[in-house]
Amino acid sequence: MRIDVLTLFPKMFEDPLGESIIGRAREKDILDINIINIRDFSNDKHKKVDDYPYGGGAGMVMQAQPIFSALEAINARDCKVIYMSPKGKTFNQHIAKELAKENKLIFICGHYEGIDQRVIDYWVTDEISIGDYVLTGGELPAMVVIDAVARLIPGVLGQEESYIDESFYSGLLEYPQYTRPSEFRNLKVPDILLSGNHKKIDEWRKLQALNITKKNRPDMFKKYINRKDLSNEEKRLIKLLIEE
Amino acid sequence: MRIDVLTLFPKMFEDPLGESIIGRAREKDILDINIINIRDFSNDKHKKVDDYPYGGGAGMVMQAQPIFSALEAINARDCKVIYMSPKGKTFNQHIAKELAKENKLIFICGHYEGIDQRVIDYWVTDEISIGDYVLTGGELPAMVVIDAVARLIPGVLGQEESYIDESFYSGLLEYPQYTRPSEFRNLKVPDILLSGNHKKIDEWRKLQALNITKKNRPDMFKKYINRKDLSNEEKRLIKLLIEE
Repeated sequence: MRIDVLTLFPKMFEDPLGESIIGRAREKDILDINIINIRDFSNDKHKKVDDYPYGGGAGMVMQAQPIFSALEAINARDCKVIYMSPKGKTFNQHIAKELAKENKLIFICGHYEGIDQRVIDYWVTDEISIGDYVLTGGELPAMVVIDAVARLIPGVLGQEESYIDESFYSGLLEYPQYTRPSEFRNLKVPDILLSGNHKKIDEWRKLQALNITKKNRPDMFKKYINRKDLSNEEKRLIKLLIEE
Repeated sequence: MRIDVLTLFPKMFEDPLGESIIGRAREKDILDINIINIRDFSNDKHKKVDDYPYGGGAGMVMQAQPIFSALEAINARDCKVIYMSPKGKTFNQHIAKELAKENKLIFICGHYEGIDQRVIDYWVTDEISIGDYVLTGGELPAMVVIDAVARLIPGVLGQEESYIDESFYSGLLEYPQYTRPSEFRNLKVPDILLSGNHKKIDEWRKLQALNITKKNRPDMFKKYINRKDLSNEEKRLIKLLIEE
């Protein structure tokens, strides 16, 4: 997959996209990421890229010309052009899966009061937000989306890592994990995990997963307990938890 | 505010937290960010930091010892210790405001199958997720939370930038913005924004904000139209939109 990122802060991307799984995918040429400085495309003699909003109001708006020129330089027609924006649809794993099917993605990172609407109307295919909080610009959100999407491209993850991703979206949050030593400063791993009884371990893990989902994500818990495909064992555990 | 970040990938943080508003806040000494490599605290002779999960399953779990030692080295008692985790509560602007009141925050970034639960039970005060998608580790999420929180610390933003943040959480997404030139490649700024009639401009902007909220965030739109404090003008615009 080829990914182009348009930004006023190209330096922000160097380290985060060079490490770990993304870094390995780039080395293996599964992923080709290009960071483009919007300012390089400004026709203004001072390389200005923003101006006051028409109609008044605080802040500056990123001008159409530099972004149009940058998009034309990378042939942005016939591919997804994603504008990272607080007014976009909320990103989730389903959107990540859809984007992972593309051959080419272009990200536009906004700053200040956003970009001139004519860029959005003329070029943008997807306006995406990563959550309900205010950030300085679209750079961190673009990295988040790139990370989530890249993990889903065949060959990026090893077999075991892929398995983890699959199991993650069971509709419940993950049960607690423990590793060696079994006792650390008087803090012990639950006996059941050392028992070797896999049926009991699975049951314990399911109960823990239900429990933390109920506590941290009542929205997910409600959705889960209304599923039609629950086993009798799951129904019993849910009943226990609700009566608590 | 002092922020300590515990990670296995310290290099990822250098550039993103050096630029723009966060970079300026660090230069002004309003923000003191320290990146700590968990691996430096491993007592293992090969500096190992992870091991297989007790009870079986895919992936590796980050061990308790290196994280305990790192937290002790920075006196992590009596302050918020935040574990970035897919099983945490979903981050939002309200949580950002609460965290911005603290003098010291510590972030733990997980990788692989997460960290040994004993770290969470013994140290962690807040388990936070930035959204419903699978990421490689807690590094990008920690940067997202740091950015959102830092913006709310007095002195970090200029007066005009603060105003933008305030107005953002009106309960609606933002109306489209335009800047010069008024005509670019036959694409024109809406006449109304050039009219100088501020009453009409405000009305147009409100209608646009309602419209994009209805389209991209039906959940927010529903919440907004049920508010008790809507003006008659707002009610009229909402009626128009719903009948569309």
